[in-house]
Amino acid sequence: MDAMPFQFSIQKKDKKSRARTGIVKTPHGSFSTPAFVTVGTLASVRALSSQDLLDLGVEVALANTYHLHIRPSEKVVKKMGGLHTFMNFQKPLFTDSGGFQVFSLGFGKEHGTGKIGGFFPESKHMNEEPKKEKSWAKVDEDGVSFKNPINGDRARLTPEISMKIQKDLGADIILAFDECTSPMHDYEYTKESLGRTHRWAQRCIKAHKGNKKQALFGIVQGGVWKNLREESASFISSLPFDGYAIGGSLGDKSKTQMHDILDWTIPNLKGSKPIHLLGIGAVEDIFNSVERGVDTFDCVTPTRLARHGYIFLTPKAGGTLEGKYRISIKNKKFMTDKKPIDPHCKCSTCRTYTRAYLRHLFMANELAYFRLASIHNLHFFLQLMREIRKAIEDKKFMLLRKAWLG
Amino acid sequence: MDAMPFQFSIQKKDKKSRARTGIVKTPHGSFSTPAFVTVGTLASVRALSSQDLLDLGVEVALANTYHLHIRPSEKVVKKMGGLHTFMNFQKPLFTDSGGFQVFSLGFGKEHGTGKIGGFFPESKHMNEEPKKEKSWAKVDEDGVSFKNPINGDRARLTPEISMKIQKDLGADIILAFDECTSPMHDYEYTKESLGRTHRWAQRCIKAHKGNKKQALFGIVQGGVWKNLREESASFISSLPFDGYAIGGSLGDKSKTQMHDILDWTIPNLKGSKPIHLLGIGAVEDIFNSVERGVDTFDCVTPTRLARHGYIFLTPKAGGTLEGKYRISIKNKKFMTDKKPIDPHCKCSTCRTYTRAYLRHLFMANELAYFRLASIHNLHFFLQLMREIRKAIEDKKFMLLRKAWLG
Repeated sequence: MDAMPFQFSIQKKDKKSRARTGIVKTPHGSFSTPAFVTVGTLASVRALSSQDLLDLGVEVALANTYHLHIRPSEKVVKKMGGLHTFMNFQKPLFTDSGGFQVFSLGFGKEHGTGKIGGFFPESKHMNEEPKKEKSWAKVDEDGVSFKNPINGDRARLTPEISMKIQKDLGADIILAFDECTSPMHDYEYTKESLGRTHRWAQRCIKAHKGNKKQALFGIVQGGVWKNLREESASFISSLPFDGYAIGGSLGDKSKTQMHDILDWTIPNLKGSKPIHLLGIGAVEDIFNSVERGVDTFDCVTPTRLARHGYIFLTPKAGGTLEGKYRISIKNKKFMTDKKPIDPHCKCSTCRTYTRAYLRHLFMANELAYFRLASIHNLHFFLQLMREIRKAIEDKKFMLLRKAWLG
Repeated sequence: MDAMPFQFSIQKKDKKSRARTGIVKTPHGSFSTPAFVTVGTLASVRALSSQDLLDLGVEVALANTYHLHIRPSEKVVKKMGGLHTFMNFQKPLFTDSGGFQVFSLGFGKEHGTGKIGGFFPESKHMNEEPKKEKSWAKVDEDGVSFKNPINGDRARLTPEISMKIQKDLGADIILAFDECTSPMHDYEYTKESLGRTHRWAQRCIKAHKGNKKQALFGIVQGGVWKNLREESASFISSLPFDGYAIGGSLGDKSKTQMHDILDWTIPNLKGSKPIHLLGIGAVEDIFNSVERGVDTFDCVTPTRLARHGYIFLTPKAGGTLEGKYRISIKNKKFMTDKKPIDPHCKCSTCRTYTRAYLRHLFMANELAYFRLASIHNLHFFLQLMREIRKAIEDKKFMLLRKAWLG
């Protein structure tokens, strides 16, 4: 892959942890790590325009292969010149492989569970009980068959099809096709699935051969078993991937289990390649993952929680670990509150509108609310990452972690 | 009203019609007429921020008294420093009187009818059959009792209450409280109602006395009867209002009936005061009303139609009178259309996104669509008004009218 303009260079390493800063170079420019990868599922970050993303300083985003395959289809995106041109955002982009969504349609639907440390991504209301439904997906050695939720058609994803779709979409960083398991899977199934995920990884490498425009990341699975995670990390990093992603669902398991998984995985990833943690976005998780050596995350948290009325606050503005660094804008006490959400925040929403006005827009279900709240929340995460990077550079990462998490 | 900083000066008069340009001065700056008054019902133009309005060059907007009274209430808005500060938009603002909404809850609900030349404003789907429901409002000599649709409470509006609410809201131009009649009302009822509207107009003048910060416009009613419209125009313009508004519902009646109403009304409005036409926003209606001497209009057309997937096009871009100068972005032919909505349009949406991308966002119900489409449609109307004003200045209004309407 000599000619590929993808490159990762580590800049600074923290002495007291695995935290590190780096720069990822792609055909669409560079981004600094640790980075929060903003999610724009359907080639659109919900409620925001690509100009909003530029104004916010978004350096890298992720779109979902599965969703775009369903609509408008990779053929349309390719015809439009690829994702960057389609959404008019000429910055580094990831696509995922569709594996996680297949999990959602399959095991996830049956068991009502979600991703590692996160909440179930298809649930419209994050606080509702997960719905248990009949599986819409069936895994075999070659790939996965599933029902297209838009038109009910039978559809199929295999490693080769995922690579082809992601090539047509044209992101800078694409992901190997894997099977995402959950802690509700037993050891036997997880082991069997892991073997398949590894064989699929090899098929992805093969299918991707000759593609010099896109970097390919392999995905480590292995559920909650130390030996499987270690085995997966060793195996995946023995293949010529450009980087690694850590996948899997934690379901109801505790956060410490996520820490264990990272501790079992990351030291076993060979080489100095970028490490992505799939679907993570809580403030606490970001600190704990960066501490363990994660370079990038993607999560819908900022925009999804904004839409549900949750606004993020730094500790300086009153955010607390117990309160998950957020407030509900619905709270009656904001009815005539003339302060911005966060008087120290530099986002355009905080510079322009009061809590009272935002509360009014939310209560009246005004569309303007969704964008203004998403701008603030996304700014919060981007600013947090800037501070984390600076702290690592200044050898103060564990101090910053302490200031936030206590 | 000597000290009131409200002023209207006519600039140019068309020789072949009643069309004229003017400048309206208010405590929050000036705007040029003929003007399209952008509607921000709940102190928010749907899907847009006040910064978007400034970027678009919106010079004047209107909020709805009835809706704001229901939520967040005029008390909250007053506490927040009034509408301008609440929504952070320091430009001239209108509020209506709540009369039309009372009509919607009352006769409108019973008969499933809407406003003059427009569609029923409470209908979520503009193409659906109007729903006929039990009246929620009861008119008596003193005012109107109605049911608060949010909490079911009994509520009341009178001329004095409307003046008080509008004073608390703090718009620059406020409207007298009237009863809006429809052509389904017979002559007897319309005549009786008109007498009441005139008595209410006198009570509004009285209640408004001493308020030097807000201009008060009287409302002409009279249904589809020439003598009643003439009588109303004469009576309303005999009172010391700062301007006039023309109200009423046309229901199923033809557009020519609207022209008749304007022709019966406007020549009978004494003095050189600004004339507002309530709830009008079709391109054809704008030309026909300006021709007849209307200075300002308000309508939800640009933003509401945007949300329903309708995008406005100038004749140069393919818009036609028969097609109501709009296209449906849903059309399959736009699936891979790389052109902007209108290649000649200077709005930020047309400068940034393709038809294919906007279609995708609409089909996928992405929130970003609503803002991007609303920006284009609002720009279309603002640009149309700029062209109309220029044409009047250049003595070419009837030529411009012909170029658009044929």
